[in-house]
Amino acid sequence: MKKGNPYGIHRVLEPKGVLPQPALKIDNNMEIYDNEILIDVQTLNIDSASFTQIEKQANGDVEEIKKIMKGIVAERGKHQNPVTGSGGMLIGTVEEIGPALKDKTDLKVGDKIATLVSLSLTPLRIDEILDVRKEIDQVDIKGKAILFESGIYAKISKDLPENLVLSVLDVAGAPAQTAKLVKPGDTVVVLGGTGKSGMLCLYEAKKRAGITGKVICIGSRDETIERAKKANLADVYIKANATDAIEVMEKVSKATNGKMADIVINVVNIPNTEMSSILSAKDDGVVYFFSMATSFTKAALGAEGVGKDVTMIIGNGYTKGHAEISLQIMRESPVLRRIFEELYA
Amino acid sequence: MKKGNPYGIHRVLEPKGVLPQPALKIDNNMEIYDNEILIDVQTLNIDSASFTQIEKQANGDVEEIKKIMKGIVAERGKHQNPVTGSGGMLIGTVEEIGPALKDKTDLKVGDKIATLVSLSLTPLRIDEILDVRKEIDQVDIKGKAILFESGIYAKISKDLPENLVLSVLDVAGAPAQTAKLVKPGDTVVVLGGTGKSGMLCLYEAKKRAGITGKVICIGSRDETIERAKKANLADVYIKANATDAIEVMEKVSKATNGKMADIVINVVNIPNTEMSSILSAKDDGVVYFFSMATSFTKAALGAEGVGKDVTMIIGNGYTKGHAEISLQIMRESPVLRRIFEELYA
Ligand SMILES: NC(=O)c1ccc[n+]([C@@H]2O[C@H](COP(=O)([O-])OP(=O)(O)OC[C@H]3O[C@@H](n4cnc5c(N)ncnc54)[C@H](OP(=O)(O)O)[C@@H]3O)[C@@H](O)[C@H]2O)c1
Ligand SMILES: NC(=O)c1ccc[n+]([C@@H]2O[C@H](COP(=O)([O-])OP(=O)(O)OC[C@H]3O[C@@H](n4cnc5c(N)ncnc54)[C@H](OP(=O)(O)O)[C@@H]3O)[C@@H](O)[C@H]2O)c1
Repeated sequence: MKKGNPYGIHRVLEPKGVLPQPALKIDNNMEIYDNEILIDVQTLNIDSASFTQIEKQANGDVEEIKKIMKGIVAERGKHQNPVTGSGGMLIGTVEEIGPALKDKTDLKVGDKIATLVSLSLTPLRIDEILDVRKEIDQVDIKGKAILFESGIYAKISKDLPENLVLSVLDVAGAPAQTAKLVKPGDTVVVLGGTGKSGMLCLYEAKKRAGITGKVICIGSRDETIERAKKANLADVYIKANATDAIEVMEKVSKATNGKMADIVINVVNIPNTEMSSILSAKDDGVVYFFSMATSFTKAALGAEGVGKDVTMIIGNGYTKGHAEISLQIMRESPVLRRIFEELYA
Repeated sequence: MKKGNPYGIHRVLEPKGVLPQPALKIDNNMEIYDNEILIDVQTLNIDSASFTQIEKQANGDVEEIKKIMKGIVAERGKHQNPVTGSGGMLIGTVEEIGPALKDKTDLKVGDKIATLVSLSLTPLRIDEILDVRKEIDQVDIKGKAILFESGIYAKISKDLPENLVLSVLDVAGAPAQTAKLVKPGDTVVVLGGTGKSGMLCLYEAKKRAGITGKVICIGSRDETIERAKKANLADVYIKANATDAIEVMEKVSKATNGKMADIVINVVNIPNTEMSSILSAKDDGVVYFFSMATSFTKAALGAEGVGKDVTMIIGNGYTKGHAEISLQIMRESPVLRRIFEELYA
């Protein structure tokens, strides 16, 4: 059996010497290396930006969607959308574990898992597409995939429905980082707190900031703010346009008696919200950017431009225990669980 | 006298409601508001990307460069290059201080200062361009500028030559953040350690990591590595291509006996170096991205893709005391001072 590299570099075909994610083509032969895990795939959860693009290109036609998806995997050996560059995740069952990994992993053959590394770097073979669920970007297939030694995953626990698990794991990084960051007494602003990751972040922030803290939810629509209010996710609710830095700053100032926030979590899904995040933080505060629409230069130059000494963090989708932390919310909070089941599962 | 906003919002003409940096046009009337400082400008230090663009557009002709620069300020009320979006900084003498600021600032009329907020948001009037020093992107003018209440600056101390001060202040953020971050015993990698900000970061890293720490300099050319070696700036020197994540990772692994770095400082000036930075850090390590060529999504998705729990920070050009910290290096290290005088002043 061939020895593999932890990051899967041994599977890269083109261009040589890069990692599997930036690679144009990787080897999706399903004979495993000594440190790989073979997965019998059940469902692909396609990244929302990627699925929207494919659906549009296919004019909504399901057979055409299938053709495009198969074409991507045939060309690249992985489901990485060539337009958006993004992937998604998958659910499947462990079929084989490489001997070099056997003693290092807590997995065993037959375990059902969700992979938490992107499909954009996961060797995949699609034998047949069984069902396309357009509303939730999920596709059932017959096929196999490979998980590298460095690849992360979550075991699917039996007490939660699979679709719920998938939709929570999709945004697991943000609430887990929030949980690690927020301390008792902190004032926390969640910009985009009314959204999917936002509601999970609010929940963790409130739990960690405690009764001496203050958690502020910012959204742009009455309807979504009402939903968060009913679930009692925050202490203060602000309706504001996240691209209007001055409006946001003034409203946060009012809500904090001019003190501003210790921690600002940005989970909006639109560009040009860097300045409202920076100006909502106090000096020496922390701004956590999870939004993939964040611009590095706008954040770096923006903070310098207003002479603001804030620590700005690039949201890392992975942190230890992120799957457990976020799934635990679904067990602890019946009201959030109901919202998630209604909206996303 | 009219009351001003700390961020200078009162000067924004177009579009209304944004901050001075993203604004297309700001008011450069030199009658000050109550919280502004009027500066008699001596020298503009144009951002390198901006100056290169202007010089090219002018085919290197000095009169044409002057015309373009005056045109920018006439149109925008500030020297923000419409192609690169960037500004620069200036040196001048305090001419007037608004009454609302008098008791809050340590400045007095007649002080010589460098502004540390970008020219891209600074109201400026150019009466005459006296001299264009193409080699170092500096332009002497007759003119005035406004510093907002939130605007940061450094007093020019008399013990260091002005050109040296300007060239150090240009990159002051990186060494100052390094100084705050590195603790005794840390292993620190400076990717691009052979460059302008890189050498200052190495100096601070070595000072803070101490004899129990290890500071690793990575550059791509024999000549620049030799220069850093002669100045004894690091403990280990690695020649590698920063865009080759695997090469960098393996060389850092060798230099650290597989332990990797506690802190990685990225100060290269080219794109696609996110993965080599991430893979050089140990789990729970910190990666500090100063390079303006950093891509937010490449960093965020890259770390997730390899399941690496690292904290990734967006380099903030400003941190308290950054001017003092970086200028102090020029006083402490005669060898670095000589290098800076030769190369950049
Ligand atoms: N790196 C990671 O691990 C990670 C993890 C999770 C999420 N993310 C990123 O985080 C972002 C959010 O993801 P999501 O799934 O939570 O999206 P989502 O459910 O669509 O939420 C988007 C949020 O943005 C708010 N918003 C949109 N326009 C706004 C405006 N003009 N002013 C104020 N708020 C506005 C929405 O509020 P209203 O509905 O009230 O307008 C909503 O709260 C995405 O960019 C995603 O890629 C990254
Ligand atoms: N946010 C802030 O406050 C702040 C502050 C300072 C700097 N910066 C940013 O930091 C970056 C560097 O600025 P600088 O003035 O220090 O630039 P610089 O003097 O030109 O240095 C660039 C460095 O990158 C290295 N480099 C270039 N290509 C490389 C490659 N393929 N492999 C390895 N190393 C490579 C160079 O090494 P060799 O010469 O050995 O090839 C050199 O050490 C810029 O993007 C700047 O905007 C930001």
